[in-house]
Amino acid sequence: MRGIVLFAHGARDPEWARPFEEIRDRVRASRPEYPIALAYLEIMSPTLEEAIASLAAEGASSITVFPLFMAQGGHLKQDLPRILAAIRLNYPHLPIALESALGDSPEILTAIAGWILSRAE
Amino acid sequence: MRGIVLFAHGARDPEWARPFEEIRDRVRASRPEYPIALAYLEIMSPTLEEAIASLAAEGASSITVFPLFMAQGGHLKQDLPRILAAIRLNYPHLPIALESALGDSPEILTAIAGWILSRAE
Repeated sequence: MRGIVLFAHGARDPEWARPFEEIRDRVRASRPEYPIALAYLEIMSPTLEEAIASLAAEGASSITVFPLFMAQGGHLKQDLPRILAAIRLNYPHLPIALESALGDSPEILTAIAGWILSRAE
Repeated sequence: MRGIVLFAHGARDPEWARPFEEIRDRVRASRPEYPIALAYLEIMSPTLEEAIASLAAEGASSITVFPLFMAQGGHLKQDLPRILAAIRLNYPHLPIALESALGDSPEILTAIAGWILSRAE
């Protein structure tokens, strides 16, 4: 059973998490059979390790991490690989795949450009 | 003539800007008649004020700022309004509208949830 982690930056303002919670709820509504959890790099909880522990406890036999960051900068190129390498040492039998940033997906860029064009009329 | 500013956070890694440049290029391809510019809060240039000056010089008679941030945190709730207030003092005859964060748009959330579902199969 595949588990899904939605990984976001985190912020001091609790309202900041709302869009990520909404995305989690939409995915869960479409695929209630997949365990899914949010995780944060900074400030908010749970951490990525805590979220993966929780999905493993729910019975996930593999995990895909989706970074909900617009672009690949230091957080995704340096921080996240370091955190994932440490987690993988603790879960040697749990395959953990990492997806690319939101802005690397043409369909997301199309949606954002379409939103801008619809609001700029 | 309406000008469009795409406002992003900025990062040390120049590759970080690519998705935002791609979004700018897509909007420009669909609406070449709208002056459009990227602007950054930190590290990268131009600043928001520089981008607005540039669009005003191109003849924009009103401007809409689209924050390409996933969520509303301190940068959009505190930093951006303060920066915009200072800019508006310098451009009293140029209406500058501000759009909401990406994650406040249901169509963007739908696209992101759809991307996750398509990759989680």
